[in-house]
This record gives sequence, C-alpha cells and structure tokens, in this order.
Amino acid sequence: MTGGRITLAHGSGGAMTHRLIADQFLNLGGPTDARDLEDAAVLALAEGTLAFTTDSYVVTPRFFPGGDIGKLAVCGTINDLAAMGAQPLAMSLALVIEEGFTEDELQRIMASVRETAQMAGVPIVTGDTKVVERGAADGLFVNTAGIGRRHPAARISARNARPGDRVILSGTVGDHGLAVLTARHELGGLVGPKSDCAPLWPLARDLLDAVGEHVHCLRDPTRGGVAATLNELAFQSQVGMRLSMPEDIVSAATHGACELLGLDPLVLANEGKLIAIVSPEAADAALAALRGNPLGAKAALVGEVVDGPPGRVTARTPLGTERMVDMPSGEILPRIC
Amino acid sequence: MTGGRITLAHGSGGAMTHRLIADQFLNLGGPTDARDLEDAAVLALAEGTLAFTTDSYVVTPRFFPGGDIGKLAVCGTINDLAAMGAQPLAMSLALVIEEGFTEDELQRIMASVRETAQMAGVPIVTGDTKVVERGAADGLFVNTAGIGRRHPAARISARNARPGDRVILSGTVGDHGLAVLTARHELGGLVGPKSDCAPLWPLARDLLDAVGEHVHCLRDPTRGGVAATLNELAFQSQVGMRLSMPEDIVSAATHGACELLGLDPLVLANEGKLIAIVSPEAADAALAALRGNPLGAKAALVGEVVDGPPGRVTARTPLGTERMVDMPSGEILPRIC
Repeated sequence: MTGGRITLAHGSGGAMTHRLIADQFLNLGGPTDARDLEDAAVLALAEGTLAFTTDSYVVTPRFFPGGDIGKLAVCGTINDLAAMGAQPLAMSLALVIEEGFTEDELQRIMASVRETAQMAGVPIVTGDTKVVERGAADGLFVNTAGIGRRHPAARISARNARPGDRVILSGTVGDHGLAVLTARHELGGLVGPKSDCAPLWPLARDLLDAVGEHVHCLRDPTRGGVAATLNELAFQSQVGMRLSMPEDIVSAATHGACELLGLDPLVLANEGKLIAIVSPEAADAALAALRGNPLGAKAALVGEVVDGPPGRVTARTPLGTERMVDMPSGEILPRIC
Repeated sequence: MTGGRITLAHGSGGAMTHRLIADQFLNLGGPTDARDLEDAAVLALAEGTLAFTTDSYVVTPRFFPGGDIGKLAVCGTINDLAAMGAQPLAMSLALVIEEGFTEDELQRIMASVRETAQMAGVPIVTGDTKVVERGAADGLFVNTAGIGRRHPAARISARNARPGDRVILSGTVGDHGLAVLTARHELGGLVGPKSDCAPLWPLARDLLDAVGEHVHCLRDPTRGGVAATLNELAFQSQVGMRLSMPEDIVSAATHGACELLGLDPLVLANEGKLIAIVSPEAADAALAALRGNPLGAKAALVGEVVDGPPGRVTARTPLGTERMVDMPSGEILPRIC
C-alpha cells in the first residue's frame, strides 16, 4: 500500500476497512491475526485500583522536531496515567482521517505509534477508524485512551498539596510548545528546541518507588504549561505557591526563542515533564530519584507551597521581586497537541 | 452560556477551557466538583476480566430521527462492550470541536450524552476537549472509550461459531442507516424510520443470564450492517452461514425506503441490535430471553451456521433460491456513525 490515498471506502466498515486494518492496525501489541479482532479487547485483571484516561490529538504540523502526532498520542495518554501514579497496561487508538490523506504518511505515523508503544511496553489492544470527506477534517485526528494499574504507594491527588510542600520539576520547560511553534511557522530560520515528547511512566515509577506516599501531587504540564498546571493544583488544593526557578530550567534554545517571540516559557506545553509536589522531608530523595532516570536528569526544586491566598501562584523575578503567575487566558497556542 | 460560540481559547488549556469543562463536563456521572478533576479517573476494581473498547463518531447530520451524535457516542461504546458480554463500568468522552460551533448545540448534545449515560447507568469519568480553527473539522467529532466487566458466563468470541449453531437477530435491520440517510438528504419528503440507537447491555445481560456459554458469538451490526458482521464472523470462525430471514425483520418504513432507493437493508448500519450465534439446543431459550426485553421484542431466528466454504454467507430469496450475501465493498454510506 504505497503511493495510494485514503478513500471514503476505507471508512465504510466493508472490505477496504478490513484491508486498512490488516495493513496498519495489527501488530500494535494487541491482535496479530485478523481472525482475532473483536468489538472490544479482553484483559485479565487482578484486584486493584485502575486509572482510566483519554485525549484527542490535533497537533499541527503533524511532524515536528522530536516527534509527530503518533508518538504524541501514545506518550500523552501514558503520561496522564503516569501522573496519576498508574502503570499503563493497555491503550486504544482511534483515527479520524480526511479523504485523500496519503497512505505513505499514515504508514509513517503508524510506525511511530508502534515504535513508541513498544518502547513504553504498552500494547494497543483496540481501535477504530473513521474517514470523512475532503475538507471535513484537517488530515488526521488521533484519539487514545488508556487504562493503568495504580502504584501501591500512590496517594496522589490534585487536592493534596499542603503548605510547606516542595515543588519539583523533572526538567526544562516549554520545549514541546516551541518545537511545534517553530515547525509551524518558518520564523526566519529560527532554530527552536526539540519536543521533549516521551513516555513518563518509568520516571513516575522511580519517584513512587523512592518516596511513595510523600508524593502529594503529580502532573504532566501539557496545554497551558507549568503556569496552568500550578494554578490548577493551587486552586484544587486551596493553597498558594511561591516559585523560585533556577535559570537553567529553561533550555538555551527555548530561552532564546521565547525572548525573540515575547513568549513566557511557563505557559508553553511540555510533553515529557512531570511536576511533583512532595512533602519537605522527601524533597531530596525525590530529586535524587528523578535525577537517577535519564528522563529526569535535569530535575530541580522550583518552589514551595505556601499558606497564601488559595490559588495564588507567584514567582521570584531575577530582580528579586515577586510576580504573579496567572492561569493563562486567551488562545495561547492552538493545536499544540 | 447561551448564544455564544466555541473559540480557540476554549481549547487552550487555560481559563476558557476550565469554564467550558465546568459548564459542560461535570455531572456526567464522574466528578461533580472542578476541584476533583485529575489527569485520569481512578476506579477500584475487583479481580476479573475486563473489556476495553473505543469508537469515534463523525455522523452527519448530528441530529437525526431517534438520536444524535451524543446519544450515538454513548450507545456505540456501551454496545461494543455488551457485544463482548461485558457490563459497562465507565466511559471516557473526548470532543474535537470546530471554532464557531454554537454553545447552544454543544449544550443540546451534552444533554443527550448525559441522559443516555444516566439511563444506561454508565458514568463518564474522564474526558478531553480540543478546538480546531474554522474549516479544520466539520463541526464536532466525538470519541468515547469504555471499560467493562465480563459476565462470568460469557465465552463469546468471533472464532466460536460452529456448524449447526443458530443465527438470531434481536430485531429489525437497517433502521439507523436509513434514518441518517433520510435526515441527510431531503429525498422528496420520504419518511424514513427512526434510528434504533439504544444501549444494549441490558439485552446482552438477559441473554447471557439465560443461556450463558451457549452464546458462541455476539455482535452489534453497525457499519456495513448485518452483511459485514456475518461475513466477519463466518471468516473468523471459518464456517459458512445460510440465512432465511423472516419478512418482518425489515420494518415497513425501512423496506419501503430501501425499495425506492435500491438499497439492501442488510448493508445498512444498526445501532440498537445484537446478532447472537448460539448452540442449537439453546436457540429457543435465547429467543425467549431476548423477546422478554423490550429491546429484543422482535427477536427472530434468521439462519444457521453450516459446514460450507469458510466465510461464505448465503440467503434464501423469496423465490426459494439462494443468493450470496457479500462483504459490502465501496463507500456504502460514509459518516453513518
């Protein structure tokens, strides 16, 4: 199937749909034989606590430095599970494809899906394909849902941040947002960073193994960036937060591009970072656990939970003053994930 | 929020996204307080066998006699679980919305989602919203995923049909397909049937309670209709099938419209029907169980599994001859679900 294009017949549920499924959707960790396809996947499960999440992906462009919509769709759902302290067990994959989409591009994206899912050790066990007529969608939209088993020591909740807790970031901020932005617009030859897009369960597991119930909140700061995530956590836990970011929490490439474009890296999306809010006595061990994993090599203490006005997040400026870190408003960057 | 339109800011992850979620996505059976929103839902689960499925919905028009895209999205995923013999436990809901979509229409659709989920007793516990710019999607696409617990007596698999087994349909065929088709085109004032769109778990449960492991295959014949589903089962089980349909398995409204339009009701989508393939000794009890539920009042024996060429499905014609029931090919009806 090279050189062809997706047609409405591929979405009809008939013979062409079966061919598309056989070509693209077997061997994703679930069924390997078309005779084993069912309406739903069946999984044996021991007693325990399950996490369940979903996200749709509409990123444009579909390929960007460091990733593509397929890798993003797999990582995004794995990371939402990881942020609830859950080991991803299985995923679903649903595509809405515009008529005329090239089979070559679909193959490249599905190869990326397969590679990312295999690397993360998470099988894609069920799926769906719809085709809409030319002009009714912008190329390809992807949805993934995932189920995971909660780490026995996970006590994570967005309501759990307490005054005195430390705020830890697992690495540099804003790289995904800028990677997509610079891939979208030519921006006069500006070289932006690579997306940080990566599956975060191994990092979350290392953290939970090390400090377990001392992890009060865990999040991956995607749309709206670190600013949105910390505002959410401060609101949900009814606490304040005071940030004091080390300079190298923004990579040189992202810093330069942000200065040039007048963007605040704290509102840019990340796709391979965790924010952990941990009890003060566990902060050093949490940092050590994160830094022991390549995905968290640049983990840093970035602030503290305070008994301030609920929902208020401030950051110390280079001049030593405090500025408000507001919940982002307006469009920010559409279709960043 | 009346009279407004969805903007890109609603998909930004910032303040407008939070307002949209608070207005539309709480009280779907999952979180009722914005402070309880997390990256993934958490569910306690006893040991057992889990089913997991997903579908995207791109139906046009979004409102049709008997349903709308919201009701369809809830029923479709419930029915995929039911067809694996699994009681739906929880669902996810993900929207891709075109900029400019009216808040009024979104409210109507979400009311339908809420009503259908409540009626079916299945909470929507996690979700996602993306907004794409005007022209990048056709109004609204919906994805649902669902997890369910398998009925202890369920031994269902598409590979399990055996020669001698009886083929049972839970009611009339083709109504959903024609309802959408007649809603889409004016068709000279033709009055088509209502969609049969309904959540089928109670019907599947009654069947499994009654005849349990005698149910060899169970499917809901959606895209590609009864023809596609029986061809799939015949291929997957490597058997033949010989159908002998009672006349009233096609409703009068659907029959009339199909004659006029030259359509075969067997290739039209259903959204509230089950096909059960059961061992011959259990056929009467299976029919009685289905007919005892309002959703299966018109259940009928429609054929038999035979030791014929694997994958070959035939039907007796009114003239007493046999015709091939092929896997549908070509476009059939795009965007029927």
